[in-house]
Amino acid sequence: MSWVQKQIDKRCVENIRMLVVDAIQEAKAGHPGLPLGMAEVGYVLYRKAMRHNPRNPKWFNRDRFVLSAGHGCLLQYICLHLSGYSSVQIDDLRKLCKLGSRTPGHPENVTTDGIETTTGPLGQGVANAVGLAIAEKHLAARFNKSDCTIVDHRTFCMMGDGCAMEGISNEAASLAGHLKLNKLILIYDDNHNTIDGDTSLAFSEDVPLRFQALGWKTIDVEGVYDDLGTFESALNEAYQELEKPILIRVKSKIGKLSKKEGTSKAHHGTFDDEDVKGMRDAAGWNNRDPFYVSPLVYKEFEQQIKQGQALEDQWNTVLAEYVEKYPSEGDMFIKLVNHQLPEDWRKSLPTFSTDDPVDATRGYSEKCLNALASTLPGLLGGSADLAGSNKAYLKDAGDFNSGSPWGRNIRYGIREHAMAAISNGLALHGSGLIPFAATFLVFSDYMKNAMRLSALSKAGVLYLCTHDSIGLGEDGPTHQPVEQLIGLRAIPNMYVFRPADGNETAGAYMAAIKRRNSPSVIALSRQKVWANIAGSSAEKVERGGYIVSDNSDGRQPEIIIIGTGSELCLCESAAQRLREENRKVRVVSLVCWELFNEQDDDYRKSVLHDHVERRMSVEAGSPLGWREYVGSKGQIMGVSTFGESGSYLDVFEKYGFTPENVLNNALRLLS
Amino acid sequence: MSWVQKQIDKRCVENIRMLVVDAIQEAKAGHPGLPLGMAEVGYVLYRKAMRHNPRNPKWFNRDRFVLSAGHGCLLQYICLHLSGYSSVQIDDLRKLCKLGSRTPGHPENVTTDGIETTTGPLGQGVANAVGLAIAEKHLAARFNKSDCTIVDHRTFCMMGDGCAMEGISNEAASLAGHLKLNKLILIYDDNHNTIDGDTSLAFSEDVPLRFQALGWKTIDVEGVYDDLGTFESALNEAYQELEKPILIRVKSKIGKLSKKEGTSKAHHGTFDDEDVKGMRDAAGWNNRDPFYVSPLVYKEFEQQIKQGQALEDQWNTVLAEYVEKYPSEGDMFIKLVNHQLPEDWRKSLPTFSTDDPVDATRGYSEKCLNALASTLPGLLGGSADLAGSNKAYLKDAGDFNSGSPWGRNIRYGIREHAMAAISNGLALHGSGLIPFAATFLVFSDYMKNAMRLSALSKAGVLYLCTHDSIGLGEDGPTHQPVEQLIGLRAIPNMYVFRPADGNETAGAYMAAIKRRNSPSVIALSRQKVWANIAGSSAEKVERGGYIVSDNSDGRQPEIIIIGTGSELCLCESAAQRLREENRKVRVVSLVCWELFNEQDDDYRKSVLHDHVERRMSVEAGSPLGWREYVGSKGQIMGVSTFGESGSYLDVFEKYGFTPENVLNNALRLLS
Repeated sequence: MSWVQKQIDKRCVENIRMLVVDAIQEAKAGHPGLPLGMAEVGYVLYRKAMRHNPRNPKWFNRDRFVLSAGHGCLLQYICLHLSGYSSVQIDDLRKLCKLGSRTPGHPENVTTDGIETTTGPLGQGVANAVGLAIAEKHLAARFNKSDCTIVDHRTFCMMGDGCAMEGISNEAASLAGHLKLNKLILIYDDNHNTIDGDTSLAFSEDVPLRFQALGWKTIDVEGVYDDLGTFESALNEAYQELEKPILIRVKSKIGKLSKKEGTSKAHHGTFDDEDVKGMRDAAGWNNRDPFYVSPLVYKEFEQQIKQGQALEDQWNTVLAEYVEKYPSEGDMFIKLVNHQLPEDWRKSLPTFSTDDPVDATRGYSEKCLNALASTLPGLLGGSADLAGSNKAYLKDAGDFNSGSPWGRNIRYGIREHAMAAISNGLALHGSGLIPFAATFLVFSDYMKNAMRLSALSKAGVLYLCTHDSIGLGEDGPTHQPVEQLIGLRAIPNMYVFRPADGNETAGAYMAAIKRRNSPSVIALSRQKVWANIAGSSAEKVERGGYIVSDNSDGRQPEIIIIGTGSELCLCESAAQRLREENRKVRVVSLVCWELFNEQDDDYRKSVLHDHVERRMSVEAGSPLGWREYVGSKGQIMGVSTFGESGSYLDVFEKYGFTPENVLNNALRLLS
Repeated sequence: MSWVQKQIDKRCVENIRMLVVDAIQEAKAGHPGLPLGMAEVGYVLYRKAMRHNPRNPKWFNRDRFVLSAGHGCLLQYICLHLSGYSSVQIDDLRKLCKLGSRTPGHPENVTTDGIETTTGPLGQGVANAVGLAIAEKHLAARFNKSDCTIVDHRTFCMMGDGCAMEGISNEAASLAGHLKLNKLILIYDDNHNTIDGDTSLAFSEDVPLRFQALGWKTIDVEGVYDDLGTFESALNEAYQELEKPILIRVKSKIGKLSKKEGTSKAHHGTFDDEDVKGMRDAAGWNNRDPFYVSPLVYKEFEQQIKQGQALEDQWNTVLAEYVEKYPSEGDMFIKLVNHQLPEDWRKSLPTFSTDDPVDATRGYSEKCLNALASTLPGLLGGSADLAGSNKAYLKDAGDFNSGSPWGRNIRYGIREHAMAAISNGLALHGSGLIPFAATFLVFSDYMKNAMRLSALSKAGVLYLCTHDSIGLGEDGPTHQPVEQLIGLRAIPNMYVFRPADGNETAGAYMAAIKRRNSPSVIALSRQKVWANIAGSSAEKVERGGYIVSDNSDGRQPEIIIIGTGSELCLCESAAQRLREENRKVRVVSLVCWELFNEQDDDYRKSVLHDHVERRMSVEAGSPLGWREYVGSKGQIMGVSTFGESGSYLDVFEKYGFTPENVLNNALRLLS
């Protein structure tokens, strides 16, 4: 490399550091430790290594970068700005951590173009990156032709000691090793510090050896501050690897250049004046205004814009050739990446009549999922080792693995948390993939933070959560969900469906698949429901709640019984018996609270009249939240304690979920 | 070993296998795969290796055994039965998975004596075992004398591939290696099968190498079916290790003896008749009734009762000597293990007046926690690398680590899930330890399943969850809890406190510490609250909700404003301004829903009159669940979307949490 270029590189890195200091001082908040320590790495990635087009952050074939150590986002914001992304102007750097800014305290894909996934909760980004790398490998296998490569990018991820300690990253890395994701490059900012102090407080494992045990290639980088080439060589070595994902450990200094360098004090917070002066002096920056960017630096990065645009142009040419040569695959590819669902995709879903044999709703789900597999080419996913129990296997779609990356069933192993965060990566790859992730409802607890991030980052993941109540039976209270439904319903932008029968299950799929910017949970029973209910409806699921049956004139039922899922049958059964005694009874299915709450006032009141004070809910889960629907004088039948091991019918009886008990409660309410 | 003993051993193991088959066939449910595959290991542990007293399952100095692969509990039930534990009679084996039995589908410490912790959700038991081993190491360091050893036991844990894949077990194992827990022995049932099939579907890492990277010694055992000595030698080797925890990998066959041996089909479910016949024939069991136990087998295990009793007697002698020689430590030890809280422990808690400088509730918490540290010798715990932010450090108590195991601050590293499950182990060690576990409230998401298991297994863990709302500010929506409070409130047997000021924080500690069979969450603010409120009360926290101020005659406020935590000040401020306009206003603190719900009807109605329909709640969290308290006509001020990055005041203002907005909402409700 020329002497001149080395000087330019040095200046660029210095400028990154100065912007870090300026932004932190201006914000009086934020995390300078990683940005200062990894400025060289950020620079090499954005200016030299990654194939990306700043003028089109959504260019399909770009290399992906995920900052799993999300608190270090200032580094990424600065690199995005210097590279020419319009999403981060110099003024945005001035607004770090300010309300309404495009530079929030942790990186958010929904706020800032150029950010791939929303990170901050540690370890999530590593799993997101595994998802992105799976998406690439899968699509490459499905679409690339020997003479035409349209899917071909790397996935870079940066993690710190925190990410390395979190269990989710080990789960994700273990799977990545198993799947031989050789285009995944994980950069470990090994700075030996966490918030509480030196890592020796709590962390003395041999991280590279662990990754080797997981099937990774590992490379150590020392001396990056003196020579960018050390890191560039590591990348070049990584590119040669054809079998394994790669961990590059960069020995770094947190807060490099500051007085706090090498200590946990550099992790977050501002610098004192003397420290700022010292850093500016060291960079030869003492007479410059805050947020100064050297023209030399902008000029260097301008090349990125040209190179990025050239890469995209080149790719567009190849894509055009592809579409010409392979019109059917080309058409599918273009529809996929444009997030166009096939017309009439809903029509593939099965319909059910009262004469059909009854099944568990997980059984209906299996039919729906497999029907959709044929019409939705982007549908793929898997289970955390419960494919059979969850009935979440695409029968004709093969397993995704290193030997058959075109397969659409991902065997996640017993790694729920990683499964959910990998699913976020699959969804946020932006290629029209519709990931599903299946496990028992109770184990949504293991996935909770990643599910929350699905909602926050608008990743339309489909969570198939079977064994959805104490009706699970013998496995007992550790496996019987009680409080999970309300916990999931409380997540903003999450839709929770609890269908009662075949048609409602189909309806839940319709509503969930349609919402590509929101994750959904479909809660499904282990046990058979008792009927395909005459008044149930796939279409009406879209309204969240609707009248299933009513023998009043429609305005004056004496009582409204509201049920969800496997308990809706109990409501219908009790209602029938009440009607035999000439009672006017309405049964309502409240299959999705969130959708019902979105309906207008008139509709909601037409289903749950205020003036009918005798309202009762029946759901084998926590009673919390139901007061909203039954009103002050209503009654809630729920489960307020943990469940118990026993046969499903014994357990349901003990907890009061029998037609008789629903009837008796209704009669008490009516009396 | 004698030829005779080998025959006896063989017969015992055969009998265990036959009981597995009988119990599964009778239950038509359950998991035979592990019990059949690990019968030899179970036998050696219960009959030869572990120091335990079947006549006193709670003997303090017993070796602990945790079955992390909890679905294999039938093996443990059988071993408990044969060893002579009265908790598992032969009839209990007949009732496997039946409602009300002492042999539920997964092992529950609260149901069956001899079970140490409740397991089933995979990986939890590994972390529980780390907690048990920490408890032992800590108490040994604090109490043992050079001439008197009263704390000295091993912790055994059995895990399968599922536990090995779960991230929580890696977190726990990494910490165990760091802490050099050499008396922890983890037995890995390496049977190469999970529910969905061969582990090659999803799991190809080198588990022993990973554990070596985590600082463990690893030992492989092959051929245990032919020679129990292979496993016994491994144990003896493990006992020699003084620096590292030990992983013993046992190469096993799932469902050993069955036609399904070595396949995932053996994981759960019954056997066909031919298979049963074949297994019985192989064991020479064909003419025997189901649930037959050979007298030879009972006789062999009878020795365990004698040996166990002798061990306990011996220990009692040493303890008596200890108490005589070291009366003060002896007194403390005996009080601890008898779970006696010191008299007047509450008095150490600080009190606050309106004149005191205001602080964040996490600041008040720090004072309370440190005050309690001096009066509660069992109090110990730590944070997941946020000790400073959580203000959860016992200032005079030192760090627990391999060099100073007497320290009472555990540096958990960035391992929230393991922290919670380790805390369960600390609590369930049964030695009077009161563990606290601290992190940001939003990261309760990472801990959720372990927190649920605290509640289910009656582990009185104290969760200190700071940064408890959007008031967290700059770190943004990934770090701002919204739906966490309602999710935690929904867990049965979990108490969630959200104190408003210094006195309520002290009250939350009083109520939480008192409840040794229930976990608690204390949600604490990052930002300073605005006042120590005149009407707040530490004692009244025990009632969950109470009147803070009221200028009506006490029966007829025009409006009741209900707040929690940092928002209670806003309620008081709005109330003052309303009162200036001659409105009759009551302010209620609903600091703990669960405690309030436990009060009698009269009390609850005296605080929240039904006839006052204008009720309003103010809490910077999900509105879900509040309808119960405000009634159909009331108003809920909450947060229905995710938060945003920005300064605390900017964010609070945007989301409506200002005195003005509370006032305006109250005025609207009054109009």
